[in-house]
Amino acid sequence: MADKAQIQEAIEVQGEEVRKLKSEKASKEQIDEEVSKLLQLKAQIGEDDGKHQFVLKTAKGTRDYNPKQMAIREKVFNTILGCFKRHGAETIDTPVFELKETLTGKYGEDSKLIYDLKDQGGELLSLRYDLTVPFARYLAMNKITNIKRYHIAKVYRRDNPAMTRGRYREFYQCDFDIAGQYDAMIPDAECLKIVYEILSELDIGDFRIKVNDRRILDGMFAMPWKEVRKEMVSEKGLSEEVADQIGEYVSLQGGMELAERLLQDQKMSQSKQACAGLTDIKLLFSYLQLFQVTDKVVFDLSLARGLDYYTGIIYEGVLTQTGIAAEAQNSSGAEESVSVGSVAGGGRYDGLVGMFDPKGRKVPCVGVSIGIERIFSIMEQKAEAEVMYKKNPKLLSQLQYCEDSGIPLVAILGEQELKDGVVKLRTADISRADLIAEIKRKTSEA
Amino acid sequence: MADKAQIQEAIEVQGEEVRKLKSEKASKEQIDEEVSKLLQLKAQIGEDDGKHQFVLKTAKGTRDYNPKQMAIREKVFNTILGCFKRHGAETIDTPVFELKETLTGKYGEDSKLIYDLKDQGGELLSLRYDLTVPFARYLAMNKITNIKRYHIAKVYRRDNPAMTRGRYREFYQCDFDIAGQYDAMIPDAECLKIVYEILSELDIGDFRIKVNDRRILDGMFAMPWKEVRKEMVSEKGLSEEVADQIGEYVSLQGGMELAERLLQDQKMSQSKQACAGLTDIKLLFSYLQLFQVTDKVVFDLSLARGLDYYTGIIYEGVLTQTGIAAEAQNSSGAEESVSVGSVAGGGRYDGLVGMFDPKGRKVPCVGVSIGIERIFSIMEQKAEAEVMYKKNPKLLSQLQYCEDSGIPLVAILGEQELKDGVVKLRTADISRADLIAEIKRKTSEA
Repeated sequence: MADKAQIQEAIEVQGEEVRKLKSEKASKEQIDEEVSKLLQLKAQIGEDDGKHQFVLKTAKGTRDYNPKQMAIREKVFNTILGCFKRHGAETIDTPVFELKETLTGKYGEDSKLIYDLKDQGGELLSLRYDLTVPFARYLAMNKITNIKRYHIAKVYRRDNPAMTRGRYREFYQCDFDIAGQYDAMIPDAECLKIVYEILSELDIGDFRIKVNDRRILDGMFAMPWKEVRKEMVSEKGLSEEVADQIGEYVSLQGGMELAERLLQDQKMSQSKQACAGLTDIKLLFSYLQLFQVTDKVVFDLSLARGLDYYTGIIYEGVLTQTGIAAEAQNSSGAEESVSVGSVAGGGRYDGLVGMFDPKGRKVPCVGVSIGIERIFSIMEQKAEAEVMYKKNPKLLSQLQYCEDSGIPLVAILGEQELKDGVVKLRTADISRADLIAEIKRKTSEA
Repeated sequence: MADKAQIQEAIEVQGEEVRKLKSEKASKEQIDEEVSKLLQLKAQIGEDDGKHQFVLKTAKGTRDYNPKQMAIREKVFNTILGCFKRHGAETIDTPVFELKETLTGKYGEDSKLIYDLKDQGGELLSLRYDLTVPFARYLAMNKITNIKRYHIAKVYRRDNPAMTRGRYREFYQCDFDIAGQYDAMIPDAECLKIVYEILSELDIGDFRIKVNDRRILDGMFAMPWKEVRKEMVSEKGLSEEVADQIGEYVSLQGGMELAERLLQDQKMSQSKQACAGLTDIKLLFSYLQLFQVTDKVVFDLSLARGLDYYTGIIYEGVLTQTGIAAEAQNSSGAEESVSVGSVAGGGRYDGLVGMFDPKGRKVPCVGVSIGIERIFSIMEQKAEAEVMYKKNPKLLSQLQYCEDSGIPLVAILGEQELKDGVVKLRTADISRADLIAEIKRKTSEA
């Protein structure tokens, strides 16, 4: 069974290799050579022993959830759900697949990661890559210009999985979006407030929310772009000056005062769109101050987000190395345990709905997506730690722990109990007020 | 836009036609002719007007849920979830797609309805067709021999959609299954009790739960099979006697007494497996009597279920024409509104897990699947009816209705209120005991 699985794995790797060469338009000889290796591998499985050996596994990059894991997942969902509802959002649902053309031209580079369904003689379909594009399609289709909605569902990406770090090919996104024409930056600030509330409530360690604006990035790169391009073409490298200049901006981090300073910056202020972005960031921070979340939010000029559809403010919630992420890492000892990373992201996408509307009517939108898998990995390790918190625990200290953490029932199964064929069930201490009721309950049971 | 959609629809139909001919291995000429029609249709879209016209729709047989619909869906889920939990089930989750070979050979005829993913150079994957096969794969993979679990998730079938009757290509199944070796018919009876509880609690009209046993069916058809076969070969039709005999059995309906009678039946008792089935049915009914659900359960020899993997008891929950299904139909007037049908189904599948285990170790399983879509269609029409229950309602009768049905707040916006620019908010009558608290609350608000 193990050998078979290894060959299957090798076939997969080899298959990817062939696909890569084809996409790179490698020479026919090179492709043929790799294809023949692939066929040899496949033949090994075929020759095997005549009997069909079944590979018992889930698809690459996916996982099952057992009941214990489901309980943790539900807890995380409830926290997120509670926050979304508190902020007045309704929920919708959309199908797991969309017409392929609905997803076309929305994700830039990342489009190659979209799962397509086989053409079985009907429509050409793809699994959804996120919940944002289906949401925009939904708005355009139903001519909705105004909604605050959340959507918690699975999305699909043919990415290189790194499951120990919580990166999967099937994973949940928890999206909250505000569509409609409102006063500038108020919905945007609410999205950041939501990230702040959820990451605080989940209690998974310290975090930061990085904020930037697509237009500042665009403006920054537009400034010396002609020179950059010349340099790149002629020497395949940035000139030192330009690199320094971009590097200088990109290393900047701060709050409202940084936005103010950059608005005074001579080079920066030459770009209209960069100024628009900076003005919005400034306004945003004034709302964030009112919302009392500026202790975790940082204006970070190095933040960029891959998706094509963002038009203004962008942001990302990251866990910082301190806190529980690190604790979990230490307690399990393994280096490949949960690593710190992005657990939330989003931004403003004012053009996306218009791409679906027959008349191109725009609906301004801003939203945020909470990625559950990394959070879940941390929570899971935390729960694990609950069980193995001591290597050689004394009974008394275990009982003390239960009392401290409110665990109401303890089953004790020691040597004596094994010998007697019983289990000692110890209830936690109860308050004086509850004593009579408890005794009554106990005696009526008997 | 409409023409484009019509052509798209025609392309789809024509595509299915070509696929059908190919699967039937029709003559090359015939296939070529239909393919050329298909290409002509596709060319029409290409020629269009140069501009790419986007078709704004969800995939065939799928739907979005708006917030109002989600609220109804959640209500249905909560009822089902509550029942599953009450019966002590844990929950698991599995990926939306499985390795194609995991699904192979499990569904017989219906396998052609499985959605395959495109081969993008990795594993061959298919969307799950039900939750039962992934559950069996999960049990085998984790060597679990004992679990009571529920799983509420979407499944996928390339079936002919009939969406007005609640038949979709993407739809929810709410599954409850018991795996493990237990005394005969006790888990089976619990599954039927669950269907009974859920259909009662949902309050969607009268229902019946039909029960049969795969082995009775097999035994019945085994009995005169040689003759049947001879007849079918020589004359392509059943002999009148055999047809009568099978017809006679198949029309039988009853309870425990029918099982007893059939056990005495000379022809029936010749088949060992039919007798085993009848004995189990008899035992099952004795538990159903204890559970007090025999008023809705009927032993029906005509019941057959398509899926290959059933090995014993099978059952199906159907809504009967009376009750709300019919009411909804009358109130909306349209004939194509919700039609009555199967809303739950299941049975015993003792061999499925063994198909996944490398050593073929079996885990006996029995389960039930509640189909939410038809139930949801009815609930949705019911909610609709709540609003338009009278064409020309008098105010007093509306208030009476609110009082009767426990609606606590009524907003009144009549001609006078419009003139005054106010809305009258009327609270429902409250009990004497609550009066003081209510007055205190009201006055402290002001």
